[in-house]
Amino acid sequence: GSIANIEKMSPDRVPLCLDLLPALSGEDTTKDFFQELVNILLSYVCKSFRRSSKVLDFHHPHQLREGLEGFSLELPDQPENLEQLLVDCRDTLKYGVKTGHPRFFNQLSSGLDVIGLAGEWLTSTANTNMFTYEVSPVFILMEEVLLRKMQEIVGWSEEEGDGVFCPGGTMSNLYSVLLARYHFFPEVKTKGMTALPRLILFTSAHSHYSVKKSAAVLGIGSENVVVVKCNDRGKMIPAELESSIITAKDQGCVPFYVNATAGTTVYGAFDPLNAIADICESHGLWLHVDAAWGGGLLMSNLHRVKLQGIERAWSVTWNPHKMMGAPLQCSAILVKKRGLLKDCNQMCAEYLFQTDKHYDTSYDTGDKTIQCGRHVDVFKLWLMWKAKGSEGFGSQVNKCLENAEHLFDKLNQRPDFELVFKSKPEHSNVCFWYIPPSLRNMPPGPERNRRLHEVMLHLGSLMLVIY
Amino acid sequence: GSIANIEKMSPDRVPLCLDLLPALSGEDTTKDFFQELVNILLSYVCKSFRRSSKVLDFHHPHQLREGLEGFSLELPDQPENLEQLLVDCRDTLKYGVKTGHPRFFNQLSSGLDVIGLAGEWLTSTANTNMFTYEVSPVFILMEEVLLRKMQEIVGWSEEEGDGVFCPGGTMSNLYSVLLARYHFFPEVKTKGMTALPRLILFTSAHSHYSVKKSAAVLGIGSENVVVVKCNDRGKMIPAELESSIITAKDQGCVPFYVNATAGTTVYGAFDPLNAIADICESHGLWLHVDAAWGGGLLMSNLHRVKLQGIERAWSVTWNPHKMMGAPLQCSAILVKKRGLLKDCNQMCAEYLFQTDKHYDTSYDTGDKTIQCGRHVDVFKLWLMWKAKGSEGFGSQVNKCLENAEHLFDKLNQRPDFELVFKSKPEHSNVCFWYIPPSLRNMPPGPERNRRLHEVMLHLGSLMLVIY
Repeated sequence: GSIANIEKMSPDRVPLCLDLLPALSGEDTTKDFFQELVNILLSYVCKSFRRSSKVLDFHHPHQLREGLEGFSLELPDQPENLEQLLVDCRDTLKYGVKTGHPRFFNQLSSGLDVIGLAGEWLTSTANTNMFTYEVSPVFILMEEVLLRKMQEIVGWSEEEGDGVFCPGGTMSNLYSVLLARYHFFPEVKTKGMTALPRLILFTSAHSHYSVKKSAAVLGIGSENVVVVKCNDRGKMIPAELESSIITAKDQGCVPFYVNATAGTTVYGAFDPLNAIADICESHGLWLHVDAAWGGGLLMSNLHRVKLQGIERAWSVTWNPHKMMGAPLQCSAILVKKRGLLKDCNQMCAEYLFQTDKHYDTSYDTGDKTIQCGRHVDVFKLWLMWKAKGSEGFGSQVNKCLENAEHLFDKLNQRPDFELVFKSKPEHSNVCFWYIPPSLRNMPPGPERNRRLHEVMLHLGSLMLVIY
Repeated sequence: GSIANIEKMSPDRVPLCLDLLPALSGEDTTKDFFQELVNILLSYVCKSFRRSSKVLDFHHPHQLREGLEGFSLELPDQPENLEQLLVDCRDTLKYGVKTGHPRFFNQLSSGLDVIGLAGEWLTSTANTNMFTYEVSPVFILMEEVLLRKMQEIVGWSEEEGDGVFCPGGTMSNLYSVLLARYHFFPEVKTKGMTALPRLILFTSAHSHYSVKKSAAVLGIGSENVVVVKCNDRGKMIPAELESSIITAKDQGCVPFYVNATAGTTVYGAFDPLNAIADICESHGLWLHVDAAWGGGLLMSNLHRVKLQGIERAWSVTWNPHKMMGAPLQCSAILVKKRGLLKDCNQMCAEYLFQTDKHYDTSYDTGDKTIQCGRHVDVFKLWLMWKAKGSEGFGSQVNKCLENAEHLFDKLNQRPDFELVFKSKPEHSNVCFWYIPPSLRNMPPGPERNRRLHEVMLHLGSLMLVIY
């Protein structure tokens, strides 16, 4: 079909990448090559949205490595021609996961937002870097506008707020711990942790593991993360937090940071932010809210009440690539105290961040991040915001939570499923077990749990085979 | 022109994003929208490659924020229609930097590789995540193949080598320090730096600032980075390294890590790797080679000799988004000791990295990285490698270094330019001053330097105005 056009263009031989731009007469070949690529990509996108297609044609690693139907992953010494590259592109999509498929349910992200996709195509065409204004004038300003809007939605005043888009929620959470440590002990930047007392962080048993990982990476140590008990819905118990803080102080340690979660990974639980903020305030601790998953609910007038108190946070992680459906990756760390990011991270590398440029160099964001070069993650979100408006995001969130409630109601009526909770979901997480006929009359207890877990494993394999 | 088609399709009103997929009859609107987007993007790409176009139509932050010619960055409550979104896309490119322009010279990256661009479009269409094999079967294997190839090129044996693609070279360097610390002091992961002696790192005065930044982030402290003197070509002096190590030991500190640079940021200098490796070996220190910039030269049989000794490194940073021309971002951290990445970083979050899946879970790379979700940075490089072959990358590097030598020769013949070094460049960095007529007869000294620096500032502003 379309690949044949490339052949037609050049009767002598199939063109190679050297025939594309910047080759002098490369415009036409480039346009033809991209036109055929776009045909492949768009037909993949359209197919992804059809329920009748498979989510994944699963193959084991060794099968794919052996080169299925001539699809070789090996890297050649000599160039392949453009026709073969298009076949490679088609095969790459063929053996991958259709993440835009209506039956693709991943941990906390699913679906393909086509406006977001358009944004990504433009971003990669612009192929630039977020470190300085002169190399990314438009994207730097878009990041500022987006961060400002998100801070406003969190509820911070106009005088407050800073932030940056990060490569994923774990990095955003890591930033929060890094900033909290620097805020209380600025000498850590130059002297290191050996100059500091033993610092303690607090997070709930249901929180994301990135808080522990951050403590490990930053040299605080994962054992210095106190895991606070949750109630049976997976929400942090404030009294437990307070007693943990007091115990840590009694042991001569220095509590400095509490992570509260707005939307836990498994249950979708919201920690009681105001109660936690009260405790942080009375003990003088940094309050971080990990709203990577739950942040999207701030866009909905119906559901934002679940994050009440978030405006009291010192920092917030919010991943638009989760509930708001932006393509991967799109994660923001929002910081209440302006200037802290820069003070904490700047190294003043003069060859890059000259302060005597002829424009306002406060827009050179590269010196306030951990990374030096930084991928442009903002444009897709900006374009989606233009396309939907704030209200569109609100409706999208409302619809998703209606769907969750619908699923909950359906499962509630069936004998072959068992809901983990009897009350309605707060987020879109609906936790349930499938109960096969053989287990329906078995009394609750460890043996039943063991067998239920086994069923789940088989279901997992089965799903990969079916879809 | 093309935008009019969108209007034609729907006589009643201009379509909105809700008319695109997954809307039931959204296929045609989606295809039309993308077709028009692709027209905009490709005509931008073609224009970028033309010398006659401007690299940048510079505007100050306040000018862009005020909304030039109706281009508003503000985020609306209500949706914009698809026609307006296409105008927004066009404006975004219009006010940005044409990084593919032949006259765009950025710090260590320039040009737009159109095969790499094709790879990025596919990557964003696949919209997936590198954390588990089941969600990214093909990309996970491509990463393995690429890392294996790069390790082989570095010169490690088949039994050695591990690695991961990271969001930028700073993160790759941070990984190296993190891994070195964990290798010597595995207890740091749980107990933190307070359980450790005072650790010292070594890097040269011309190295990238990310080594210091890593020390600050990881809780080691930037003051514990010893800056080793360089010779006048910007290469680390091995004898200075050795005496710095001995001094640190005498002061009761514990040296553990040396960063050698293969291709410094400003001079493009290569540290003497074998001499540094000898010192590291005799003192039992981790040798990291930051070849973010110089790694590309390994692809060239002519130039790889400049990195002799790199095979003795314990870890290597190599950014294909620099010398190899891959789109941003594409940076690898290569680690000689297999299993270390996982031991250092795993947190065993069971809900995500179940060990009882029905496939080989060693392919679930998410538990060996700092990040949890991870952007797919490998496909563009894989596709470029298919398109060029290893030999194509070699020729590309050779050509680039020939061009640098040509520039050097040209400047050497002119009275209006002064080369910083009298000998030929080792990498593609050619350092020079422009000498205006008024300074050509001025004797060397601080006053001349001051005035030369002023000239550079004005040239910088001028260049933004001209291009």
